[in-house]
Amino acid sequence: MPTALLPLSVTEAAVCCEPLTQETLTDTQADDLARSIKALADPTRLRMISIIAGSPEQEACVCDITEAFDLGQPTVSHHLKVLLDAGYLTRSKRGTWAYYQLVPGSLDALARVFQSA
Amino acid sequence: MPTALLPLSVTEAAVCCEPLTQETLTDTQADDLARSIKALADPTRLRMISIIAGSPEQEACVCDITEAFDLGQPTVSHHLKVLLDAGYLTRSKRGTWAYYQLVPGSLDALARVFQSA
Repeated sequence: MPTALLPLSVTEAAVCCEPLTQETLTDTQADDLARSIKALADPTRLRMISIIAGSPEQEACVCDITEAFDLGQPTVSHHLKVLLDAGYLTRSKRGTWAYYQLVPGSLDALARVFQSA
Repeated sequence: MPTALLPLSVTEAAVCCEPLTQETLTDTQADDLARSIKALADPTRLRMISIIAGSPEQEACVCDITEAFDLGQPTVSHHLKVLLDAGYLTRSKRGTWAYYQLVPGSLDALARVFQSA
């Protein structure tokens, strides 16, 4: 689905806040943003995101994601759940496997926070 | 100092890596990037960065930073040191006070990692 067709709320789900150079964060904004950033502050989760984001249609089967890591299935599932809960991924089941999709605009929303005007 | 005059190494100090949507991260890149992100995955440090980034010349006195938080001086110093070590801030002493400056380009380098092409 092209990003242009998505309602704004989808891209705003993952990350709050105006660019850091433009607005001093309130306590609540800082809490929300720290939570969004924390979900990515882990090497395994960053590699998962980069595998999914770099796949055709920004989607990957949990089977391929698991194969890329020397980790047990529960650990892989835990990391994917953190990324789901933080709004960076969605999940759909087709046949035997679950597929994880990058939420369009979610990483760009984070990029905007760090970008200077 | 205008960003254009800075050597490239300064903006590359804080954050490694090509955009996540363009390149699958190696283990080493993921470790480096996670470290850079982790330094910002804290509400207090995000507010500190936003105070400094939003100040004239992107610089703030430690006296003003301390005043903005209900925290002891050692805690404030700890958070500022994490941001210094991660390459987002520099520090200079003038008279009684230390001043913290945003490293030009450091937040933009992080933005580029999350931006889609």
